[in-house]
Amino acid sequence: MFETEPALSKSERTRARISEAATASFIERGYADTTMRMIAETAGVSVGNAYYYFPSKNHLVQDLYERVQREHALAVRPLLDAERALVDRLRAVFETGLSTLAPYERSAPGFLAAMIAPDSPINPLSADSAPAREITVGLFREAVDGAQHRLPSDIAERLPDALFVVYLALVLRWTYDESAHHAGTARMLDAGLRLLSVALPFVRVPGVHATARELLTLVAEVRS
Amino acid sequence: MFETEPALSKSERTRARISEAATASFIERGYADTTMRMIAETAGVSVGNAYYYFPSKNHLVQDLYERVQREHALAVRPLLDAERALVDRLRAVFETGLSTLAPYERSAPGFLAAMIAPDSPINPLSADSAPAREITVGLFREAVDGAQHRLPSDIAERLPDALFVVYLALVLRWTYDESAHHAGTARMLDAGLRLLSVALPFVRVPGVHATARELLTLVAEVRS
Repeated sequence: MFETEPALSKSERTRARISEAATASFIERGYADTTMRMIAETAGVSVGNAYYYFPSKNHLVQDLYERVQREHALAVRPLLDAERALVDRLRAVFETGLSTLAPYERSAPGFLAAMIAPDSPINPLSADSAPAREITVGLFREAVDGAQHRLPSDIAERLPDALFVVYLALVLRWTYDESAHHAGTARMLDAGLRLLSVALPFVRVPGVHATARELLTLVAEVRS
Repeated sequence: MFETEPALSKSERTRARISEAATASFIERGYADTTMRMIAETAGVSVGNAYYYFPSKNHLVQDLYERVQREHALAVRPLLDAERALVDRLRAVFETGLSTLAPYERSAPGFLAAMIAPDSPINPLSADSAPAREITVGLFREAVDGAQHRLPSDIAERLPDALFVVYLALVLRWTYDESAHHAGTARMLDAGLRLLSVALPFVRVPGVHATARELLTLVAEVRS
């Protein structure tokens, strides 16, 4: 056992080095201009070795998605521990999500072009992206389930998956945002959450309830 | 005068032939695999002549956008003449817009990848796309201005530009829709319009009014 552990740890360190080299290149050169060869060189491993850990550049993107979402989860934790109101908890998930994306501001348009096609394996709504997506959906679920709210249970159940699609729309808007510190996106999120706050109690009105459930179900089902 | 008219008309016919050849190729081969050379060949003109009429492939895309939006305007006309209720008029603009896109169903994902980057000249929110965009925004403006509604004027003013951004989001969802006859998108639009119907009267409530105006302004300002 003692003999194999350092070997495993070396393997983990190599994997992490490749992963870091990929992220650095995605940030500096962008998605399209990053190659497995460059990543291997920066990480100081052979190209074959890089492919052993990550069968394609897109596997490295998925690895990045998961890492970013684990950071998102860490960033939102203290806020979810402190806030009880539903809209404040949702605000916490949205805002920390956008903050976590800050290092990718310049590379975002290139990623967007590569991920937007419905058949792209790095589309956040694709089957391949399920592990990263489940982290984010899990944060929205925690925000909803741990909140003091009076939402009907069928609405509360559907919210997290629908909010993930809304989150992607917000990230799309963020990618287009040229205002300093993405102030335009922040103000849009804020105004949207204030309207949600006013609208939420009406979800219990019978006619509204059924239509809201239908709309949430349809939004939650959007997949690439 | 009589001598020049046939010449102008020949020029117009050549332009239309190039334009039709481009559309046929965009539909068959997709955006990425279409070249000016192919278009010129199909249209029976020299490559130089094709470039004389359309300085780049992207000019042909803008030409297509404008043509599709003029078709959209023609398709919605009888409905705007018949419907008076705001939500019914908006429904007419959204639904005829999606119908007009039907021939581009298969080529839509490729177009999406080419147009989504904020700096793409064929981004529907770009300066280059203003002529086509203004047709669509004009339809939403006509739907709002010709409706029997009791919206505050500052809300009514901001609606058309904001609705254009909502329309693009709907077209994005349509591009992802694999259900037969895009039934998923149609149901989402329908549920969204029914909720809008319920929500609209509340726009006159003072706290809601200011926040709704703010959100509409922020959405309307989104540009690439």
